[in-house]
Amino acid sequence: MGALDEGHFCSELENGVKLGCIELSLDDEPETIAIEDAVRVLMHGLGEDVNREGLKKTPLRVAKALREGTRGYRQKVKDIVQGALFPEAGLDNAVGHAGGAGGLVVVRDLDLFSYCESCMLPFQVKCHVGYVPSGQRVVGLSKLSRVADVFAKRLQEPQRLADEVCSALHHGIKPAGVAVMLQCSHIHFPNLESAFLDSNHQGWVKLLVSSGSGVFENPSSDIWADFLSLLKFRGINMEKTCMRDSSDWCPSRSSASANAVSKVESANQGMVTAVASILRSLGEDPLRNELVGTPARFVKWLMNFQNCNLDMKLNGFVSARVDPLLPNGDSCREKQIHSELNLSMWSQCEHHLLPFYGVVHIGYLCTDGFNPIGKSLLQSIVCFYGFKLQVQERLTRQIAETVASFSGGDVIVVVEANHTCMISRGIEKIGSSTATIAVLGRFSTDPAARARFLQSLPNSAISGP
Amino acid sequence: MGALDEGHFCSELENGVKLGCIELSLDDEPETIAIEDAVRVLMHGLGEDVNREGLKKTPLRVAKALREGTRGYRQKVKDIVQGALFPEAGLDNAVGHAGGAGGLVVVRDLDLFSYCESCMLPFQVKCHVGYVPSGQRVVGLSKLSRVADVFAKRLQEPQRLADEVCSALHHGIKPAGVAVMLQCSHIHFPNLESAFLDSNHQGWVKLLVSSGSGVFENPSSDIWADFLSLLKFRGINMEKTCMRDSSDWCPSRSSASANAVSKVESANQGMVTAVASILRSLGEDPLRNELVGTPARFVKWLMNFQNCNLDMKLNGFVSARVDPLLPNGDSCREKQIHSELNLSMWSQCEHHLLPFYGVVHIGYLCTDGFNPIGKSLLQSIVCFYGFKLQVQERLTRQIAETVASFSGGDVIVVVEANHTCMISRGIEKIGSSTATIAVLGRFSTDPAARARFLQSLPNSAISGP
Repeated sequence: MGALDEGHFCSELENGVKLGCIELSLDDEPETIAIEDAVRVLMHGLGEDVNREGLKKTPLRVAKALREGTRGYRQKVKDIVQGALFPEAGLDNAVGHAGGAGGLVVVRDLDLFSYCESCMLPFQVKCHVGYVPSGQRVVGLSKLSRVADVFAKRLQEPQRLADEVCSALHHGIKPAGVAVMLQCSHIHFPNLESAFLDSNHQGWVKLLVSSGSGVFENPSSDIWADFLSLLKFRGINMEKTCMRDSSDWCPSRSSASANAVSKVESANQGMVTAVASILRSLGEDPLRNELVGTPARFVKWLMNFQNCNLDMKLNGFVSARVDPLLPNGDSCREKQIHSELNLSMWSQCEHHLLPFYGVVHIGYLCTDGFNPIGKSLLQSIVCFYGFKLQVQERLTRQIAETVASFSGGDVIVVVEANHTCMISRGIEKIGSSTATIAVLGRFSTDPAARARFLQSLPNSAISGP
Repeated sequence: MGALDEGHFCSELENGVKLGCIELSLDDEPETIAIEDAVRVLMHGLGEDVNREGLKKTPLRVAKALREGTRGYRQKVKDIVQGALFPEAGLDNAVGHAGGAGGLVVVRDLDLFSYCESCMLPFQVKCHVGYVPSGQRVVGLSKLSRVADVFAKRLQEPQRLADEVCSALHHGIKPAGVAVMLQCSHIHFPNLESAFLDSNHQGWVKLLVSSGSGVFENPSSDIWADFLSLLKFRGINMEKTCMRDSSDWCPSRSSASANAVSKVESANQGMVTAVASILRSLGEDPLRNELVGTPARFVKWLMNFQNCNLDMKLNGFVSARVDPLLPNGDSCREKQIHSELNLSMWSQCEHHLLPFYGVVHIGYLCTDGFNPIGKSLLQSIVCFYGFKLQVQERLTRQIAETVASFSGGDVIVVVEANHTCMISRGIEKIGSSTATIAVLGRFSTDPAARARFLQSLPNSAISGP
């Protein structure tokens, strides 16, 4: 990794908040510039104008996010643990284990994220670490999290991540043993075709992996039982989380996807080469066994969001529209709110080339004689505008305008989404969510109608990992 | 603030993980060194040996944490928002509000923390921000969080924080209006005396504050109602959160505390002066009205953890001990587990001078003829060892040894805690918790007894904010 070993880069990603980068900021490094060039190739391949306002800085944003998200390659565990080992007495005059000699220490619920080496999308990790101190010394608690993060901030698969964290802590702290348990969640996007068909698409692949050293080497030992008792997996349903081989957990490795990938490979060889060059710029070897198919898989995923420049064809549905001026007059009929809540939404943020996902709630006013719009049509509209490079504000407006075009013009649309860029990039705001709203026709002038619809929204609609 | 304006410091706090700090790292700056000196004065005042292993680097840790935690003084909103405003169309051919012209955007559940200007302890903030775009442009979503953080990373009180975030976004984005809603939680430690008396001490002071500009200026407007509908305060009990004047929300400002403070002021003038100098080093004016009493309040709080070098006196309780060798012999009686779960625990981390708090579960074996140890005695033991500069591992051991000394030697102690240093410092692992265990006598050799006790622990014992 040569020049990268010194790690001259800034942990704040965005322009403006420069903290201590006096010379050679991340922006100016040759690796960053090389990734920017590769991202431009990808955006061209998507049919996008790389000079469009919203996209202009996307290559730099993506490059910085990727380098920051893989900074673990440039960090050393020794540097973290050094100076954070504290002398701590064990038991004085008694038989047993406590303090710096055998008193099990467990740190639970550390939220991390990592990058999947199969598809380059981030995956979320809830990390639990335990160790049994020995030699009358303990380690500063935050170091368990920092060491785990060194290995999370690389291209990973869950089992290797657990093993590397375990082994690094074992060698760094030299305790009686280390136990690591990771609950990993990988987003499972539908692809463009299946999204239109399968509205009950399962959004997450979950995996539980563990690793143990020293006294934790045997998973059926009593000390493992103690560790598990202290985890108690608060709020997590153990039955839903399956322990299994993690090498093929990534949804992009399923056989259906694999076939599609081989097709992609020939059609978009330039994009595939660009992704391989990104891997090299991050300090990885694109020929490493686990990475060989990654560029093609990433391109396949990205092509879901190809710019098609087509308006949605609604010809087949316009016939469903009832003329708003029936013989007996629109004004003498009471309009009612029809609504369709919790439509699944999947999209790709054009600022960061990272997924955002959530639900769409649509309401519209119509008179009694009107046939309500079918749920599948509304779901198709959401899919159509989702599978593009997007921003949530635009997506909301486009859905509203489209529904208005054949429902009579009184439309309200609420989009609730989790943005991977808010979780996996600089600010790491796990748990945050974004709501946007568009109001057309009477919903923009009648607060009571708006309130009636908003109050009908379910309390907790987005299903996170 | 002079030289600080340039913000030459590193956002990683710990030694070792240096990211891009080529010259003049935070460690070497005169402001950091001045704070270290002041922290040494405080530790002397607590009766501690500043050269003790666990404390040696505490001054540097505290200095870096405080400067990092107040980095907002050295950041500029303009720099953050600049380049993150994107052109985004409004509605095409319809009446209403959507996209870059009037489509409300809400970012919910941003976890922040800030420092209380009354007592210098960190407080937690769940921040919700909304704005109505105008001028056909929107701002990158992460910028709402970044701007809020600039003002959170200062000495604050909730209402001013909300007002400053609102005003900064309004001037930075120039939208139709901005709404900010903050749910703030301030830890409420008992003091040393009350802790022994009041085991049902209320651990958190909560406050809900809001601020609005432009179309949000009137809190009873329809657009506020829309904003509140989109928040829905998921999982938060609105009734339990009271909106009120925030200038006196800090528990250290209660009248009882205020009296105590005046006593402290004369006895520990050197410590008070040291805290005032810390405020100056952070770039604050210790004579600012709201800060005048802060040094004395901080010292009063800190003196709860004075080193008293006394062993706990158990004379009064030893009489409760039953001789283990009764006439009919210990061995022929079945020993039973007695346990006391969820004892409140409050302590102060000696590595960071920041609170940690949670619950202690104690189990011990005794024969039928033995009077169970009273809950109030066990709670007193927990308090006694909590009100010191501590590490959780030692606290666990000391409680176990003390209980063993009069219960016969078969003891298990589990401490579950949230560490403010894990939340408010570099790694910001909100939601993480730490469990430690000590096992003495038969609990160290009998996995079944251990398992029986561990399985009896409640599922979610620590009450966070």
